[in-house]
Amino acid sequence: MRIATVPDAEWIERVGPVAGVEMRSWDMSTPLPDPEIGYAVHPYLTPAARVAAAGALPGERVVQLLTAGYDAHLPHRPETVTLCNAAGVHDAATAEQAVTLMLAALRGIPEFVHAQQQATWLPIRMWSGLADKRVLIVGYGRIGRAIAARLTPFEVSLTAVASRARVGDHLVPHVHGMAELPRLLPHADVVVLVVPLLPTTRGLVDADFLAAMPAGSLLVNVARGPVVDTEALLAATRTGRLFAALDVTDPEPLPDGHPLFGAAGVLVSPHVGGATRAFFPRAAALIRSQLQRYAVGQMPLHIVAGPRVDS
Amino acid sequence: MRIATVPDAEWIERVGPVAGVEMRSWDMSTPLPDPEIGYAVHPYLTPAARVAAAGALPGERVVQLLTAGYDAHLPHRPETVTLCNAAGVHDAATAEQAVTLMLAALRGIPEFVHAQQQATWLPIRMWSGLADKRVLIVGYGRIGRAIAARLTPFEVSLTAVASRARVGDHLVPHVHGMAELPRLLPHADVVVLVVPLLPTTRGLVDADFLAAMPAGSLLVNVARGPVVDTEALLAATRTGRLFAALDVTDPEPLPDGHPLFGAAGVLVSPHVGGATRAFFPRAAALIRSQLQRYAVGQMPLHIVAGPRVDS
Repeated sequence: MRIATVPDAEWIERVGPVAGVEMRSWDMSTPLPDPEIGYAVHPYLTPAARVAAAGALPGERVVQLLTAGYDAHLPHRPETVTLCNAAGVHDAATAEQAVTLMLAALRGIPEFVHAQQQATWLPIRMWSGLADKRVLIVGYGRIGRAIAARLTPFEVSLTAVASRARVGDHLVPHVHGMAELPRLLPHADVVVLVVPLLPTTRGLVDADFLAAMPAGSLLVNVARGPVVDTEALLAATRTGRLFAALDVTDPEPLPDGHPLFGAAGVLVSPHVGGATRAFFPRAAALIRSQLQRYAVGQMPLHIVAGPRVDS
Repeated sequence: MRIATVPDAEWIERVGPVAGVEMRSWDMSTPLPDPEIGYAVHPYLTPAARVAAAGALPGERVVQLLTAGYDAHLPHRPETVTLCNAAGVHDAATAEQAVTLMLAALRGIPEFVHAQQQATWLPIRMWSGLADKRVLIVGYGRIGRAIAARLTPFEVSLTAVASRARVGDHLVPHVHGMAELPRLLPHADVVVLVVPLLPTTRGLVDADFLAAMPAGSLLVNVARGPVVDTEALLAATRTGRLFAALDVTDPEPLPDGHPLFGAAGVLVSPHVGGATRAFFPRAAALIRSQLQRYAVGQMPLHIVAGPRVDS
């Protein structure tokens, strides 16, 4: 019998029994209880430094994160620990938030909320909408594809951009390379950012990028705040030329009274991309599948660092 | 050459030339200019009585409405006029509004708009979302199917209800009959109303219907206001037991200061379902296809009343 830990009794119930694995409760805030533990789940939204506890006793073991990001954990990783991230677990919620922001901004939901506060009915007029829009998805990994899948039935035309050009999938026939952005931006009614934050993507959306977007177009950011130059965005929205819907900002959290809150045509959600109840069943399914591999001595999925990295 | 009219020169351009048809401008507010006109498009959002002008000269002709509804036009229809509605033209925009309201309400957009007005960032918490929800679509005609198509990639489970039970389609395996509603409602996290207003659907959503919905569930109405009993809905939301997102209301428009505007957990949009720019290309495509049939003497599509009704 191999031994694994999850953060608490609720997680034992969520994951359910896995043949060949004994599951125990450990939230990594106390010393590692048993050197036989080979797989430990790091609790969600707790300090990254807890990963260190997994190296306190001899032996190699896997620490499973429940976030997609893992940069904060790397400095605390003991040499004997293989780190796995929760790739895929937050895709549904984050893609859903991207589409929510897009639809809410295009269909006028903020105006309707304001009218409701005034307890008044807005007069009839033709509104914008998503149908027929040309949507450019910048970043075409798992979440980018999940966004494309959700947008497909909305009668839009989709274009995808990734770091390098490649053949597409059943959603887009071709994935363009980042170098093609200047040529693609003038033909986008909606630009969705879902790139990782890297030296090459920091400040990607600067004054030139925004100037290349057509007048009246919408920028949606569900990537990371610093992908967008906040000052340049404020300047572009001030003239009414562009609209924006942002789940992430720079700085983040936005300090009280920050000008982005009051910028015309800007909708801000407080970084809620992955934070929905869709997380629990998807995280449980990932842990279950990792434990099934662990039970038979297979390498875990989604290794991001450690002695068992294939390289 | 057969002669047809559209409301103005912009419509002539939108529709484009159709072989065998001469297209003229006529907005139906003046007398019928030529008895040879066999097909006339009634301008959008103008008085229903204009349909009468098409009967002023001898001969049979078709009047094409640009709305899905036609009840208001019936009393004005001359005997020699065949009336066609714009079935399908508003499906994309209305289905899109249903999904927009659902996502905005579930993902907390109204709260984010309020926080933005206070220029403050809301603290981290787990939000609700659409993924994994059980969505019950009440009314499974063209718009109901368009809603189902848009929801399918969101990782939801869909159940459809129509006036009579029947075999389903590629979106839902089975369509339930209205009589099954009491059994289905307790298993719905989201109920979307998209039924026509009929004696059988007026007041369908009463106190019993609302009581059968689970605590914390969401009602979305893109059908007609009187399908919901407003007083019963106000009572159900007052306790915080249910949420609602309404594109249509009873009365409509809501008078200034109406309690629905301020009801907790209620999002109201001012009947904007079909009113988006998606209307123009879809209406032009319908007119084009009708004119192609007219050119070769075929019956028009979507006949709703008149001498050429097959019955």
